[in-house]
Amino acid sequence: MDLKSRIDAAVSKAVRHGQAAPAPAKLAAALEYATSPGGARIRPTILLSVALACGDDRPVVTDAAAAALELMHCASLVHDDLPCFDDAEIRRGKPSVHRAFSEPLAVLAGDSLIMLAFEVLANVSGEDPLRSAQLVMTLARQSGMPGGICAGQGWESEEKIDMRAYHRSKTGALFVAATQMGAVAAGQDPEPWGELGDRIGEAFQVADDLRDAVFDVETLGKPAGQDDRHGRPNAVAELGIDGATQRYHDILSGAIASIPSCPGEAMLAQMVNMQARRLTPSTTASRA
Amino acid sequence: MDLKSRIDAAVSKAVRHGQAAPAPAKLAAALEYATSPGGARIRPTILLSVALACGDDRPVVTDAAAAALELMHCASLVHDDLPCFDDAEIRRGKPSVHRAFSEPLAVLAGDSLIMLAFEVLANVSGEDPLRSAQLVMTLARQSGMPGGICAGQGWESEEKIDMRAYHRSKTGALFVAATQMGAVAAGQDPEPWGELGDRIGEAFQVADDLRDAVFDVETLGKPAGQDDRHGRPNAVAELGIDGATQRYHDILSGAIASIPSCPGEAMLAQMVNMQARRLTPSTTASRA
Repeated sequence: MDLKSRIDAAVSKAVRHGQAAPAPAKLAAALEYATSPGGARIRPTILLSVALACGDDRPVVTDAAAAALELMHCASLVHDDLPCFDDAEIRRGKPSVHRAFSEPLAVLAGDSLIMLAFEVLANVSGEDPLRSAQLVMTLARQSGMPGGICAGQGWESEEKIDMRAYHRSKTGALFVAATQMGAVAAGQDPEPWGELGDRIGEAFQVADDLRDAVFDVETLGKPAGQDDRHGRPNAVAELGIDGATQRYHDILSGAIASIPSCPGEAMLAQMVNMQARRLTPSTTASRA
Repeated sequence: MDLKSRIDAAVSKAVRHGQAAPAPAKLAAALEYATSPGGARIRPTILLSVALACGDDRPVVTDAAAAALELMHCASLVHDDLPCFDDAEIRRGKPSVHRAFSEPLAVLAGDSLIMLAFEVLANVSGEDPLRSAQLVMTLARQSGMPGGICAGQGWESEEKIDMRAYHRSKTGALFVAATQMGAVAAGQDPEPWGELGDRIGEAFQVADDLRDAVFDVETLGKPAGQDDRHGRPNAVAELGIDGATQRYHDILSGAIASIPSCPGEAMLAQMVNMQARRLTPSTTASRA
């Protein structure tokens, strides 16, 4: 099974579990809507790639970790799209959850996906209680306060923003979760894997800034120019398109260099390069 | 240390952890605001009481469980108060979180408290990985879909409500979490403790209906008559005040009868009675 099919199967299984009867039908449908067909599944793809590079000796644990991370990511998208944040009309080329269902159901769908993520991780404690607990710990830390994605969003309510902490938590946190959870799922120490996640997160942020500046709404599947409209800081505003593109490639080289020694090191470097090509707008990729 | 102080200390410790620098200051303040001074702390009090009745042989695990449950409860209050749900102006006698801070910060505070709850539980995996995982599992199940508090709130978006599932998940779920997590924290099988939680939850729901019908906003610390205003079903509408009061006492007798055999059985029965007296409006308590 290729990685994408493995991730989709794990996510679907988790969502079906959350929809078991008796469940309120609309909220159950919103869980499905928010998680499929899904986007590039880039975070769980990184997680699986790291786990495979480390031997993937407990695939059931790895699948749970990948599903949990994707559920958390989907939850964050649903809440970020709410009227009080981005008020996004579309997401992944279809109406955002609060537009398709309602605002109450969008809040609840996000909350439910968060709970489901942790339940999925606890579910594999029979396989390996310590890995299960470490996965819960890593996901919770990279999602909440003071350093997770909630904190990242929280910085946008501050008058004075700690830019390093902002980017690190807003975008980087779930990539750190991806590499560290991949390592934990395969029984490795998560610590040395933090840097790879950090750097992928930085690269992703710069790529997003580039796409946001270059692309129109049709290509992006969400309103373009969001950062500019909300006055949020970004690499293109800071360095221009050429400068941001150069920075993107520098960060990726650093990411590849940071990969800890493991059986699948070369394969992992290839995966990072492949994901990098998918992320960059063709206009900037052609300059590389 | 009395139970209240023990719970407050555990909750404060968890919140301080979520506020560690660098954290966005307003969101950090919102976490504090949403969790202290706190209400009656009834759910963690039940949890601690059950753990004590079962021997409380790992107090660090019990404290984490109590804190996590209270954080989850506070998170649910913050989200339930949002404009798209109850649009509550006041909670626990002070402005609700979205009124005191902002709507984005209220969504994020709720999300952050949920993450923190699971992080606190994962944190004690060093003490006992299996209990830690079982606590995560129990809390996630009773909080999310298809049977937790999210599901409970989700039923309110349905045209046709499964009343049993609605009450069970909306109010009962965190009481089931309380009794079961108390048992797990003390190394006991959670299963036989579910009924006690279920029945306390039913009693609480009826007591809430009674208070909602009888009390004014000043005594309640939140707008009265909410159920009536939102057309939600309740025991007073169904049975009248006298009938609902009778039902309340019947449920409590059943709750006490359901307590599994354990060293602290008598103490626990006393606690349930004590909490029951705190819950009922004096007008109805005097009829008992």
